[in-house]
Amino acid sequence: MLSNTDLSKTIEKKEYRETLSKMEETLTHLQQKIREAGLPVIIVFEGWGASGKGTSISRITNPLDPRYFDVRTAGQITEDKIMRPFLWSFWTYLPAKGQIAIMDKSWHRVILPGVREDWQLSNNEAHGFYFDVNAFERQLTDDGYLIVKFFLHIGKDEQRRRFKVLEKDSNASWRVRPHDWAQNDNYEHNLQLFEKLLNATSTEESPWHIIEAEDMRFATCKIMKIVIDSITHKLDAQKPTPTEINTAAPVFSFPRRLQGIFPDESITDAEYKDELEHYQQRMRKLCNKLYVTRRSAAVVYEGWDAAGKGGNIKRLTSEIDPRCYAVVPVGPPSPHELSRHYLWRFMVKMPKDGHLTIFDRSWYGRVLIERVDELTPEPIWRRAYQEINEMEQHLISHGLILLKFWLHIDIDEQLRRFEDRQNNPLKQHKITDADWNNRSNWEKYEVAVDEMLARTHTANAPWIIVESNNKKHSRIKVLKSVTDALDDAMR
Amino acid sequence: MLSNTDLSKTIEKKEYRETLSKMEETLTHLQQKIREAGLPVIIVFEGWGASGKGTSISRITNPLDPRYFDVRTAGQITEDKIMRPFLWSFWTYLPAKGQIAIMDKSWHRVILPGVREDWQLSNNEAHGFYFDVNAFERQLTDDGYLIVKFFLHIGKDEQRRRFKVLEKDSNASWRVRPHDWAQNDNYEHNLQLFEKLLNATSTEESPWHIIEAEDMRFATCKIMKIVIDSITHKLDAQKPTPTEINTAAPVFSFPRRLQGIFPDESITDAEYKDELEHYQQRMRKLCNKLYVTRRSAAVVYEGWDAAGKGGNIKRLTSEIDPRCYAVVPVGPPSPHELSRHYLWRFMVKMPKDGHLTIFDRSWYGRVLIERVDELTPEPIWRRAYQEINEMEQHLISHGLILLKFWLHIDIDEQLRRFEDRQNNPLKQHKITDADWNNRSNWEKYEVAVDEMLARTHTANAPWIIVESNNKKHSRIKVLKSVTDALDDAMR
Repeated sequence: MLSNTDLSKTIEKKEYRETLSKMEETLTHLQQKIREAGLPVIIVFEGWGASGKGTSISRITNPLDPRYFDVRTAGQITEDKIMRPFLWSFWTYLPAKGQIAIMDKSWHRVILPGVREDWQLSNNEAHGFYFDVNAFERQLTDDGYLIVKFFLHIGKDEQRRRFKVLEKDSNASWRVRPHDWAQNDNYEHNLQLFEKLLNATSTEESPWHIIEAEDMRFATCKIMKIVIDSITHKLDAQKPTPTEINTAAPVFSFPRRLQGIFPDESITDAEYKDELEHYQQRMRKLCNKLYVTRRSAAVVYEGWDAAGKGGNIKRLTSEIDPRCYAVVPVGPPSPHELSRHYLWRFMVKMPKDGHLTIFDRSWYGRVLIERVDELTPEPIWRRAYQEINEMEQHLISHGLILLKFWLHIDIDEQLRRFEDRQNNPLKQHKITDADWNNRSNWEKYEVAVDEMLARTHTANAPWIIVESNNKKHSRIKVLKSVTDALDDAMR
Repeated sequence: MLSNTDLSKTIEKKEYRETLSKMEETLTHLQQKIREAGLPVIIVFEGWGASGKGTSISRITNPLDPRYFDVRTAGQITEDKIMRPFLWSFWTYLPAKGQIAIMDKSWHRVILPGVREDWQLSNNEAHGFYFDVNAFERQLTDDGYLIVKFFLHIGKDEQRRRFKVLEKDSNASWRVRPHDWAQNDNYEHNLQLFEKLLNATSTEESPWHIIEAEDMRFATCKIMKIVIDSITHKLDAQKPTPTEINTAAPVFSFPRRLQGIFPDESITDAEYKDELEHYQQRMRKLCNKLYVTRRSAAVVYEGWDAAGKGGNIKRLTSEIDPRCYAVVPVGPPSPHELSRHYLWRFMVKMPKDGHLTIFDRSWYGRVLIERVDELTPEPIWRRAYQEINEMEQHLISHGLILLKFWLHIDIDEQLRRFEDRQNNPLKQHKITDADWNNRSNWEKYEVAVDEMLARTHTANAPWIIVESNNKKHSRIKVLKSVTDALDDAMR
């Protein structure tokens, strides 16, 4: 792609002025359309040092209403970012519907040389990187995002010339750093790396556009044209609701796992007391180790209403240093959450290294309540199985330890607990109409849970079903599972 | 306070167990009340190294439902924090209504020795610090927050003993760092610094509680009791709406400044073209300088509907490197913004060093639309004048350059523009019923604007009134004012 690009393309000043002015008008108008349609747009600029990324961004933003776009400088790798999966910071940058986010460098940076001195990806890691990046972009485009990616290309001599000009300008000399010169010195090697990256991450939905950037007028016009065409095309193609199911295998026969589970297992009070103390102390020590060794962990609680999630979480956390963990309760999404990809609100809450985050309900709501209550169309919640698996794999690749629990009670036990809550003034706030409604959908939930278990039970992120008719047994099983997993992972 | 504290207080194990268990039950119950009442609670732990802050936090959180509290470790000073006013990170930590935030170290840290090696506050700076901290705490308590502050106190010998115990434990030895030993070596000097801090920041609304922490059982009981008493007292005292005006001078005669302004000043097209180019280039260079010299700036746009804010912002920003600025449009607050102090959503958006943020409408909405439309009770918007002045002073003390513009048109010009919008299909989206409603309140707005100008026009953050009947004059005046101010501040 890069090596056979003709870099001599230019455009004359007069033609440039006329073309640009017309395109600016079009873009101003399109931004209004974007807002009306609620289209979220991401424009990515990558390229050689001094290839004109900043100037190009200026040209693009010039006709835009500054209240509805954001420019993100993503090049710097800060401690905040290193301590989380590499896509984390880009999730935090996601534009809301109707907004444009312009990225000065992007998630592709991670694999490029010169970003971090100690950064040496093995082939395996590079493979994982491409997988994660392509999954990320596909998840966004599936959700209706438009991603337009530009690579600004200049030759070795031209880059050298630009560095020298910058160095002579006292206001700009700080822009040329040693790693920039290193890029020029190893131009041919870097060209190969770029080429590989562009090939591996150019997809039908979000292809790379190579921009011949030696003549900035030519580059500007080409960029503007592609932005305008991409937006126009996307707006034309937008459908209010997807009608087709686009996962690989919509018809899927899955084992009815829940029916084989007998949630009655129990434990004596004496055993409970001993084991509780034992595992809580173990938990405390392991979380300390988590902190010292800079690992991170996430625990997902799903389960029937009244299965005892709250009390279970309390027993899991009560001896841990409270500075090392956070509990994230997950309820219905708020408007600013709804205006982004549904994984957004979970990704931004992921723990940084050294910490544990517990999700009281989770991203699985998509394939449970949203499915059963028909809050989300089938093609969209079906797509989520793959998205979830990809997200979890991304977390695990970073080194996060992930545990997922389904707290299981039977339908009679739930009724007992509901009635108990109803009759106890101190517990009445815990029972609502929504609970009774969910209960009436018990069988639909069973199907949804079984399919979830089958589709998202992966080698690295298995589901653990916890028999919870007896709360004490349930708590000990979770404590034992978590401590075993932490111990294992940090051995 | 500290030097005459009796550190020998203890409590027996049996009494401790019984008292604690009762208090835990009370606290569990109180947390439910906190949620029902929508009370936001902040509990602050400061104290000597190894005085037991972590353990105390554990004890407090033990009876709490982990879904509704957060523990924040605020001790580390990261680049992110250094590049913003020191209260910024604490604004980002604010709990929502019904939530409890527990701070392991806090905003008081900034003035303590050993936090940053290069940190040497002059007397003047210390004075500014106390002012900012007390204003911050008063703003929160005025808004209904409960703040409970603990200082954990131990003697020099006890601290020495604890450091040694920690050093012998291979799992904990990393906790004792050189600056900890330095604190012990200079114990008497540090005692004086702590004493000064506690005296300067102990107020009626949020006093410091000194905890004798040599016996952890005693410390735990005292902390629990104070937390319980403080919450109970606050819940009893909570009133749904304030009825009294609690600013110093509610009756205030202010000059009717707007009436003396003639918004007709204009400029020829030729002058406009020349000056626009001149000032935009100047703006570009100054923003580059802002970035290189790591200063920050904020520009506030307020003004009549249809005064031309959007177009004005565009002219101000069009030549700046888009990576250096952001525009924040300010509309009605969303639910998660409403559940915190109203300054929260502005503080979290403040620029970091090297950057410019433009507010398209701003925190002044409190004393403009919220006042005129009676969205907020008078005592609350009246309080805002002082809160705003304090916030702006805090920004300026950090080195931020602040400019505030009122774009002024007369009532006839507004009508012309409204009708023009109404009749132009491309502009119809810009005019809504709300605009006509605001127009019918023109005189009430005049009073509100005049009072705002009088009360918040300060030496360091003056208001600039921009005659805007002629849009070109308006744009040039803003550009000239901003560039002059930046030039001045970075001279």
